[in-house]
Amino acid sequence: MDTYKNADFLYHEVAERLGRMIEQGLLKTGDKLPSVRALSEEQGISQSTAFRAYSELERRGVVEARPRSGYYVRYLHRRHAPPPLLPAERQPIRDISVDEMIAEVYRSLTREDIVRLSMAAPSLDLIPEARLNKSMMEALRMDPNSCIHYDDIQGNAKLRQQLARYAFHWSGQALPEDAITTQGCMEALSLSLQATTRPGDTVAIEAPTFFGIFSVLQSLGLKALEIPAHPETGASLDYLEKALGRHAVRACLFVPNFNNPTGACMPEGNKERLVSMLARRDIPLIEDDIYGELFFGRSRPASCKSFDRKGLVMHCASVSKMLAPGYRVGWCFPGRFREQFLQRKHSFSVTSATPTHAAVARFLETGRFDLHMRKLRKALHTQCLRYSQAISEYFPEGVRVSRPQGGYGLWLELPPKADSYILYQQAMQHHISIAPGKIFSTDGRFRNYIRIGFGSPYTDKIDWSLQVLGQLVASAG
Amino acid sequence: MDTYKNADFLYHEVAERLGRMIEQGLLKTGDKLPSVRALSEEQGISQSTAFRAYSELERRGVVEARPRSGYYVRYLHRRHAPPPLLPAERQPIRDISVDEMIAEVYRSLTREDIVRLSMAAPSLDLIPEARLNKSMMEALRMDPNSCIHYDDIQGNAKLRQQLARYAFHWSGQALPEDAITTQGCMEALSLSLQATTRPGDTVAIEAPTFFGIFSVLQSLGLKALEIPAHPETGASLDYLEKALGRHAVRACLFVPNFNNPTGACMPEGNKERLVSMLARRDIPLIEDDIYGELFFGRSRPASCKSFDRKGLVMHCASVSKMLAPGYRVGWCFPGRFREQFLQRKHSFSVTSATPTHAAVARFLETGRFDLHMRKLRKALHTQCLRYSQAISEYFPEGVRVSRPQGGYGLWLELPPKADSYILYQQAMQHHISIAPGKIFSTDGRFRNYIRIGFGSPYTDKIDWSLQVLGQLVASAG
Repeated sequence: MDTYKNADFLYHEVAERLGRMIEQGLLKTGDKLPSVRALSEEQGISQSTAFRAYSELERRGVVEARPRSGYYVRYLHRRHAPPPLLPAERQPIRDISVDEMIAEVYRSLTREDIVRLSMAAPSLDLIPEARLNKSMMEALRMDPNSCIHYDDIQGNAKLRQQLARYAFHWSGQALPEDAITTQGCMEALSLSLQATTRPGDTVAIEAPTFFGIFSVLQSLGLKALEIPAHPETGASLDYLEKALGRHAVRACLFVPNFNNPTGACMPEGNKERLVSMLARRDIPLIEDDIYGELFFGRSRPASCKSFDRKGLVMHCASVSKMLAPGYRVGWCFPGRFREQFLQRKHSFSVTSATPTHAAVARFLETGRFDLHMRKLRKALHTQCLRYSQAISEYFPEGVRVSRPQGGYGLWLELPPKADSYILYQQAMQHHISIAPGKIFSTDGRFRNYIRIGFGSPYTDKIDWSLQVLGQLVASAG
Repeated sequence: MDTYKNADFLYHEVAERLGRMIEQGLLKTGDKLPSVRALSEEQGISQSTAFRAYSELERRGVVEARPRSGYYVRYLHRRHAPPPLLPAERQPIRDISVDEMIAEVYRSLTREDIVRLSMAAPSLDLIPEARLNKSMMEALRMDPNSCIHYDDIQGNAKLRQQLARYAFHWSGQALPEDAITTQGCMEALSLSLQATTRPGDTVAIEAPTFFGIFSVLQSLGLKALEIPAHPETGASLDYLEKALGRHAVRACLFVPNFNNPTGACMPEGNKERLVSMLARRDIPLIEDDIYGELFFGRSRPASCKSFDRKGLVMHCASVSKMLAPGYRVGWCFPGRFREQFLQRKHSFSVTSATPTHAAVARFLETGRFDLHMRKLRKALHTQCLRYSQAISEYFPEGVRVSRPQGGYGLWLELPPKADSYILYQQAMQHHISIAPGKIFSTDGRFRNYIRIGFGSPYTDKIDWSLQVLGQLVASAG
């Protein structure tokens, strides 16, 4: 009797679970279900129990048996139609924490119905998709194992060869074995921090700076010491020097070239001074150089790494702002922290993904990258000028705007009493997103600043958005 | 005069750096160098300085000018030929730490001249490369942006849809929004640990267990509490229950299905008891179920997750042991720790790689995965039997070997006085690598055990290797 009861329970349970999968849309109308035999094997039940489960679902009108073919999900009348798309709801304006604000701005980035001036990345229109696809196909074809194998722990050998060649651009001198590849620049930064600090340590960062940096510091239990940064020349080195005397700073994490959000580019003399100031105290400098190749002038700004004599500079970058953010291809030249960096990379993610890294290597070695970058720099320079021009025209007197020499963003200072988070919410009601200044420091101090990304080609819609923003700023003043 | 001296220094410096790149092989014989104009732009020097740099290199015989074409790297006589490959050097046998031993075994895994019985992963011969390549092409073609964009922070939507369908296999019930994708299973484990523990906390693990687990615990500053595990039924729950009374255990990280190295599969009753024992104390269970689909019997063993009522089980897995380790496609069903897990994924690596995850989603949704897994399971079962058979024949009396019902490895107990690290070194002299038992615990306690992976199809070379190993064990006894 027990056996019978068990089988009875079993067929019912299997039918219930299948039924829920159909209701939840995991199995869709017209999908073929496993055969009775396959279901019995998968679930470790007898074929007769599997058959009973299907009969039960058939009785409920959820599946149908097709002769000599098997069971299929039926058309379900009671499935709901998706709700109609409504215009963005007007939400009451309230003040929220910097963390919540960042999460909110991030969510707005995935909405396609929005003009995303909050983005500091290339519009996908500027990326040569077809050539990148070609590089992927070639990489798969040329690799004896079609890139299915674990790659070298340090990273794809061909990619590291190319990275060492490119070091010449940032005035560095590097060998393929000096580079370690990562899952984008964020993994490079986080592994650099883990290789040089312990929870509770203090890390000097710029203010303002990219909010992803606060988030990784917080996740690692590190404290941020914010160094004020000038919108043209970057971090104040005098301030830093004094701060180093007062605080036990374990590492510095700076974005010296075309800083996000200000666009500041630290002059070479400052870079040299920064590197030697830290070298005297044996403090590692984690250099986020993700924007360095996006210069509008004649040549790429030097990296801090090029002034490094003690192996203390960890030079981090990626292709995310130049080519394909979704490929997650980044790297680090970790200097003397090579072993610690590699050990952590290996324990956290074993190796980098072979196909995407091999595809980027191929894109570099065929010269497709150089060609693309020349076009991209020109496009961005033009876009920067047109956005700046429009802002001068549409925004009221008293608004100041940065004049970056590279990168993706304009940093705007609004009148002192403006609140950029209120502006953000007002703009969202017009389906325009901007990055409010508050999200670029831990204490929300850049209240009357906004960042406007110029990664998208200038269109009528962009022009209209900037007009709307200008009017919102004017009416707030 | 100063200007002249600067230019003088500049051309020399640029020539020196180019020269070093040629010497180091970053620029190879026949490579075209940038044009004078391009070099001047890249380096921010005048065209005449760029010209002088090339003239200097030409004078040294390192580059040559080709009329109307530009500068090329010359054939260099002084380049050394690579040293001839020597047979593996006989190194003195010495005792080393568990960490050093793990690093050594890892290095042997990348050597193609070695019979790698130390590997617990599929031989690449068992992977349907062509079908996977096809899935990649289809994924790129079907995506409106060719997969170059940042994917959903939680992971590729199509992949999560498939993972929710597959949850049915491990007797779970899951929705696409319950899954978060990761860079392989190791990232899933490390984010699970970070979502549930803080440095200094204690985590219960099995002994023996996969050495990657010690490494990630160490990197996160966590303490390991080792729970003895039976080679057939897994962790001793009586021992665990007592240990939970004595230690403040913050999380458990177990491999309940086809444990690596023992191949043990925890009986369902034990899984249920384990989950409820931890639930009573609100301790999260990180379940590494990377081998669960590799069953030889009629059906997949259940997961601990299927007994979870409180959302405390974090179910982690990947395609690395089934399909393409190099794709780095893993996932976690993190239960109630969803927010913490997602926040850390986002701060450490932003999103997962779009192309590889989309390709795996495609491989799953076309049914290619089911077909492949049916073949793979059969092949592994056959291989397991043939390896076991050969070991019974070639190894001396007194050697005990596990009888796994799935997975990739056999766990051998050698006579008590055998030292498996000495055996490892002796085997390496015959170009055979095995995994010495010592690397599967933090204190090296499994001195007279070895793991032999059966992921490679059985060949004459494998047969010979097992004969050699058998003789080495016999002569040591």
